[in-house]
Amino acid sequence: MTIKIGIMGYGNLGKGIECAVKQNKDMELAVVFTRRDPEKVSVLTEGVQVCRAEDVKDWVGKIDVMILCGGSATDLPVQTPELAKLFHVVDSFDTHAKIPEHFGAVDQAAKESGHVALISAGWDPGMFSLNRLYANAILPEGHDYTFWGKGVSQGHSDAIRRIEGVKDARQYTVPVPGALDAVRRGENPELTTRDKHTRECFVVAEEGANLARIEKEIKTMPNYFADYNTTVHFISQEELMRDHAGIPHGGFVFRTGKTGWNGENNHIIEYSLKLDSNPEFTASVIAAYARAVYRMAQDGTAGCKTVFDVAPAYLVDMTGEEIREKLL
Amino acid sequence: MTIKIGIMGYGNLGKGIECAVKQNKDMELAVVFTRRDPEKVSVLTEGVQVCRAEDVKDWVGKIDVMILCGGSATDLPVQTPELAKLFHVVDSFDTHAKIPEHFGAVDQAAKESGHVALISAGWDPGMFSLNRLYANAILPEGHDYTFWGKGVSQGHSDAIRRIEGVKDARQYTVPVPGALDAVRRGENPELTTRDKHTRECFVVAEEGANLARIEKEIKTMPNYFADYNTTVHFISQEELMRDHAGIPHGGFVFRTGKTGWNGENNHIIEYSLKLDSNPEFTASVIAAYARAVYRMAQDGTAGCKTVFDVAPAYLVDMTGEEIREKLL
Repeated sequence: MTIKIGIMGYGNLGKGIECAVKQNKDMELAVVFTRRDPEKVSVLTEGVQVCRAEDVKDWVGKIDVMILCGGSATDLPVQTPELAKLFHVVDSFDTHAKIPEHFGAVDQAAKESGHVALISAGWDPGMFSLNRLYANAILPEGHDYTFWGKGVSQGHSDAIRRIEGVKDARQYTVPVPGALDAVRRGENPELTTRDKHTRECFVVAEEGANLARIEKEIKTMPNYFADYNTTVHFISQEELMRDHAGIPHGGFVFRTGKTGWNGENNHIIEYSLKLDSNPEFTASVIAAYARAVYRMAQDGTAGCKTVFDVAPAYLVDMTGEEIREKLL
Repeated sequence: MTIKIGIMGYGNLGKGIECAVKQNKDMELAVVFTRRDPEKVSVLTEGVQVCRAEDVKDWVGKIDVMILCGGSATDLPVQTPELAKLFHVVDSFDTHAKIPEHFGAVDQAAKESGHVALISAGWDPGMFSLNRLYANAILPEGHDYTFWGKGVSQGHSDAIRRIEGVKDARQYTVPVPGALDAVRRGENPELTTRDKHTRECFVVAEEGANLARIEKEIKTMPNYFADYNTTVHFISQEELMRDHAGIPHGGFVFRTGKTGWNGENNHIIEYSLKLDSNPEFTASVIAAYARAVYRMAQDGTAGCKTVFDVAPAYLVDMTGEEIREKLL
């Protein structure tokens, strides 16, 4: 008996899910749904059907967990509550400010239909959130620090591409080494936005474009760049394709805190990720949570869940005896 | 309504629990049990009774969670099953090889009496175990590495103290920096015991003792030292007290793994702890799990549990809404 997985949306994340399913022997890919013409979408897994997104209802009862690979801006706020009426689902909704609203909509749909819907799986939100929670539980008196990178920010790359005269761009978020070190030494520094991260931009300009203007527009862009030390490198399209094709990311979650009758002892908890492929790692987290969703559903659970609600034992394809013997 | 905590055993760990309870506003220390003469044990918390261990039955119904602070060698194998008949309990049983047996005995006692008993809380087993599990769930194809230290090993310090002519000793386990770096770079090295850790010993010899013999006995001691590069420093009792009075510890858990259709992308997950006080940090983890035990008991759960069975949300004194807003 394998867990039959459906994928809704076949972009970078959907492909990552397909690869993750291949690595998990207790799962199989049942179907991929796309809003494109299914004839024009070819998947990697032999024998797997590609279907139209609007035909998803035909698959009720034929898949165990549907994984939603759309974007948080417009896809998931609609798709997750809709599909939670039909399937157990997992998404990677990552608009932090809108999580309460999303949770409410999904929870209602999942509870009414008796499904388990896990939202915001991935690494941030996801593994970073878990590490913040565990560390806060252990050290109630302390300081939290999260650093991101070195990695590609899709949102910032897109913002640069919208500037007139820009053909293509890739933006890296980079943690400031000195700030990381100060936190790691337990100095509990007060860090501004500028102290924590720098932004490095690789820009392909259109021929004849005013480079000085583009650079200035980038560096002064509110929210995205104005609060950071930003460097801009103009490169050719060939260089961009050759040197910046990957989607690496990662980051660091710290909590520093005190224990002892008078707070005399210091402790530093650090979690870090160094990822060659942001979407594939996110997909790997989601696959583990799809297993958990399947099992929680078998227990008779229903409603919207987050990583905080999932007992870790549900995530691995091992019995209780095995995990106590091998991992405890 | 606060969670009323009982402490069984008032050594370093018991004192750590007392300090942790003070930091957790939803908990209060109700009673400390000792095998010593209660008249001779003074605790830090004002107004808290110290009682004889044999009178523990008088406290049934008066405390919510009993925390067992005895040792894994002889105390906990007896105490945890016994006390799980009377109370919800947490222990920090850390003899890895005997966990299945301990789990079985505790599970039976807890299920028969309707209690929740969480065993092996702390950082290893405990937080390190959780990190191994999460990382294995995410990256099914990969390598695990655990390094310990720099920190004091009580067992190794005791082993040195048993050598003739040794008055006192302190042993530090130290990860080999080059091995750590190789893992961190994703090289997936094959590491022997000797490659991973060195052992540093600070020894106070009795007057006139044969230092060369002591050093040789340490360095050739099977299991404890023979498989490691070990350094021995002879120091005075005053130096030992002045420079080696703390009980620091810590370590690193890594998993490195591949994703992608052909395993083309590498990922490195690293979790590390740097602890001024091993017992106080262990106690802080236990306190969080005492909260979880209390809540699981309110849900009607019974039986033996480990950190793998506890949904993270149970660990913090916050509502679901709060954790989703602040930590997700």
